[in-house]
Amino acid sequence: MSTVGYDIPATIGMPVAEVETPALILDLAAFNENLAIMREALARYGVRLRAHGKAHKCPEAAKRQLLTGGATGICCQKLSEAEAFANAGIDDILIANEVTQPAKIERLAALATRIRLGVCVDDKAAATRLSEAATRHGANIACYVEVNVGAGRCGIAAGTPAAELAAHIAELPGLSFEGLQAYHGPAQHIRGLAERETAIGGALDRVRETLAALGARCIPCPTVTGAGTGSFAYEAASGLYQEMQAGTYAFMDVDYGRIEPLAGLTPFRNSLFVLASIMSTAIPGQAVCDAGLKSLAVDSGLPSVFGRGDIVYTGASDEHGVIRDPDGTLKINDQVRLIPGHCDPTCNLYDHMVVVEGDRVVDIWTIDARGKSF
Amino acid sequence: MSTVGYDIPATIGMPVAEVETPALILDLAAFNENLAIMREALARYGVRLRAHGKAHKCPEAAKRQLLTGGATGICCQKLSEAEAFANAGIDDILIANEVTQPAKIERLAALATRIRLGVCVDDKAAATRLSEAATRHGANIACYVEVNVGAGRCGIAAGTPAAELAAHIAELPGLSFEGLQAYHGPAQHIRGLAERETAIGGALDRVRETLAALGARCIPCPTVTGAGTGSFAYEAASGLYQEMQAGTYAFMDVDYGRIEPLAGLTPFRNSLFVLASIMSTAIPGQAVCDAGLKSLAVDSGLPSVFGRGDIVYTGASDEHGVIRDPDGTLKINDQVRLIPGHCDPTCNLYDHMVVVEGDRVVDIWTIDARGKSF
Repeated sequence: MSTVGYDIPATIGMPVAEVETPALILDLAAFNENLAIMREALARYGVRLRAHGKAHKCPEAAKRQLLTGGATGICCQKLSEAEAFANAGIDDILIANEVTQPAKIERLAALATRIRLGVCVDDKAAATRLSEAATRHGANIACYVEVNVGAGRCGIAAGTPAAELAAHIAELPGLSFEGLQAYHGPAQHIRGLAERETAIGGALDRVRETLAALGARCIPCPTVTGAGTGSFAYEAASGLYQEMQAGTYAFMDVDYGRIEPLAGLTPFRNSLFVLASIMSTAIPGQAVCDAGLKSLAVDSGLPSVFGRGDIVYTGASDEHGVIRDPDGTLKINDQVRLIPGHCDPTCNLYDHMVVVEGDRVVDIWTIDARGKSF
Repeated sequence: MSTVGYDIPATIGMPVAEVETPALILDLAAFNENLAIMREALARYGVRLRAHGKAHKCPEAAKRQLLTGGATGICCQKLSEAEAFANAGIDDILIANEVTQPAKIERLAALATRIRLGVCVDDKAAATRLSEAATRHGANIACYVEVNVGAGRCGIAAGTPAAELAAHIAELPGLSFEGLQAYHGPAQHIRGLAERETAIGGALDRVRETLAALGARCIPCPTVTGAGTGSFAYEAASGLYQEMQAGTYAFMDVDYGRIEPLAGLTPFRNSLFVLASIMSTAIPGQAVCDAGLKSLAVDSGLPSVFGRGDIVYTGASDEHGVIRDPDGTLKINDQVRLIPGHCDPTCNLYDHMVVVEGDRVVDIWTIDARGKSF
């Protein structure tokens, strides 16, 4: 039997005031609104959504995106993450990343016999090893050539090198060339719209160059996939991309809250919070809450306190958050809702998402892919 | 059955080269050496060690500290963490932190009927609520008054306020006043020894002031507990502290590696690493590994690459680490050992610690308290 506060933070029907903290909570109404905003945007631009499961690692959240949010598939970053989503019944997954370790390639090929599975490739020898495993397993692995469209991380150079890799893949048994992975991560977080559009403009140029090189070789490119919450309107409007990979849109976080919203779209709302409790007010002018570095990812900055302009989360240690409270409004056991600095690695700290409507817990979703970084 | 690469990163006996990455690995020889260095230091100063379990959240690591490392008990930061260690058979635990939520106080009192359990207090009303729960459960809860000795986080003011709280606790049924929690967290990380000694000097002054206030009230103070890896020699030599709370010493990390080591002690060695694999070398002069923000806590800075002066980990995204490799030495599937920036929240990302001797996996330890921040 699960113990509340040890194994799980809440039970269904419980008032939010009784949830054991720190807990990851999802405001279901705001989440559903974000899904609706995205669904309408997809329809307007005529593009598909492959919702990024790395944002939440939670199959139930992914199912909502598929059933009511207009998504036609999901993507994730790691093989073990894909396995977790597949084990929960999701059957169309793109690993938007390279998979190269020999044991992982075996498992990837095995998974590809169960679901429609895609993976990214930026190296010829890696493609050959995928083909050998696919052949052994009697699988087909959908391969996307990852192109470096400006992120400078993984991805082969645009144009001829990418087209040559696509040609190599197209000739290999067990693999199909399904398109281009063209995601510009850093551009998502550029604050100003004009600068962001310029960065995405550079990505579009590299996609065009690669599509031309593919065309010159008569290699059809079924899908160009990429784009995130910060930029997807540009990729969607370009006519070059068929598939978006946004994930954060469903939740939002402090970092995405800092950027200028895409024009012509209803801004996404914060739906994801870390619920924390005050545990000390011993020092005047501050309160200390029970959510620190082990409950909140701070790589993109500290959390902010939702709905409170008068108090500021100013410092995190392992299990403490210091909140500046000049008026001394916070008392021991008061709850605060913290907007995480970065939603993806914050979700990865929790086994459960506590779903709330108003002041009531209405569901508990398991974060099955938490820790699945293999 | 556990699947390697999905549930667990390795099996015992496996060569390290075959471990599924990213994985948290522990060099057993270096870990044991660190335990021996600490054991000798404890004997020299005549103080006890309450090894800090928050560093690793791993009962097996704690048991080694207790059985061979000279520790006489452990501490941790959260109730659910204490429950995880208690469930693994550890029977003397101090929660070096305040516990104030009503449901948690009930569980804390219940746990105190099973093991010798301590907790920190910095508020009179909170002490009263602990007493009521202890009485209901027929438990004794060992209470330590947390004094703000300079960290400016939790902790009541030194001197009279702390002594008055101790007097309040001493009068309450079900509670015993066991001493002072006097930990100066920020001082641990001050780079220079002289500046660190000065900061700890301020903490010692506040402890002295509080002991004097207790003495004036004829309240015995069995234990002053506190001190971490960066400073413990000062607290131990002061004659004021009986108990050290170091944790990182067993592992070390980049942040603690930056500080000037305590004089007269053999420096602690890096025993804890994130094993990562190269997954892309598509961009000349760099390699991309499979360990990013979800595999490494970056709150105290990026990881460094163990034993390699020629390559530098320069950037982390969710599941990628970019490594500058000007000479192009890294190939796809090469492994690197990354020293985490901060060991505590890095351990909290993993369910297993892969214990290695040389190039061989010799044990797998479960990180039972991973995610136990309740």
